[in-house]
Amino acid sequence: MWKEEDNKLKRSFQFKNFVEAFAFMTKVALEAEKMNHHPNWYNVYNRVDIELNTHDAGNTVTDRDRKLAEKIDKLYQG
Amino acid sequence: MWKEEDNKLKRSFQFKNFVEAFAFMTKVALEAEKMNHHPNWYNVYNRVDIELNTHDAGNTVTDRDRKLAEKIDKLYQG
Amino acid sequence: MWKEEDNKLKRSFQFKNFVEAFAFMTKVALEAEKMNHHPNWYNVYNRVDIELNTHDAGNTVTDRDRKLAEKIDKLYQG
Amino acid sequence: MWKEEDNKLKRSFQFKNFVEAFAFMTKVALEAEKMNHHPNWYNVYNRVDIELNTHDAGNTVTDRDRKLAEKIDKLYQG
Repeated sequence: MWKEEDNKLKRSFQFKNFVEAFAFMTKVALEAEKMNHHPNWYNVYNRVDIELNTHDAGNTVTDRDRKLAEKIDKLYQG
Repeated sequence: MWKEEDNKLKRSFQFKNFVEAFAFMTKVALEAEKMNHHPNWYNVYNRVDIELNTHDAGNTVTDRDRKLAEKIDKLYQG
Repeated sequence: MWKEEDNKLKRSFQFKNFVEAFAFMTKVALEAEKMNHHPNWYNVYNRVDIELNTHDAGNTVTDRDRKLAEKIDKLYQG
Repeated sequence: MWKEEDNKLKRSFQFKNFVEAFAFMTKVALEAEKMNHHPNWYNVYNRVDIELNTHDAGNTVTDRDRKLAEKIDKLYQG
């Protein structure tokens, strides 16, 4: 689940391989661009670590982050 | 399921929306590039129609197509 | 350039290989999802054929298609 | 350019927006999966930071990393 830490919403996702991880990133990219709110994210192989906060709000966690987090969870469930 | 018709392996895939359809296409793209064997494919919104044959074998269906079809089925099942 | 034919805006794009073609498709996918207006498109290897019309307007060409076509041209120029 | 530091090859790439950055990531993903050698990478908006090393060689920089770095540079140039 997401945890709030250091003014960021953070969650780590695990997949069976790189192909599944990158397909998930593609879904998140499509939603993030639509919301015009982009993640800070890190990937290595089958792992995707996402951190969300709002640059325009002094890098704090806002409702835009909570909304994107919720959306990402739905994409993860498929 | 795949059907063989007009010297092509054909299958149509349906998703709940464009985001899911394009994430599936991304998975197929990653596998196709790895096999150096690329689909003829058509997408509109939540539908992806794939046709496979082998250019280097006079546009007939070969084992390379059957192997890619099998791989695509696994990607679809997730 | 785009041509209007059979109530569709049509244009074909050529790339140096599949990787470049699919990266272009990813850009178009991101913009199309943002506009909530999706292309009818076909890809084989380094070629991407796009057809645009508006389902909600009886499958005719509307300003939404012209706007997406313009956007796609910009993505193609990079 | 790439620099070698802490047993990693590192380079940062900048794009005009998220769409261009993610299209670049898609190209890199296609090549990385084909080489079965995946980057450690971080993205935020228009920036992509890549770090390469080889897990199977005790997380040191090997020829596989240098080859992928070279490939990534070519993809960046387009």
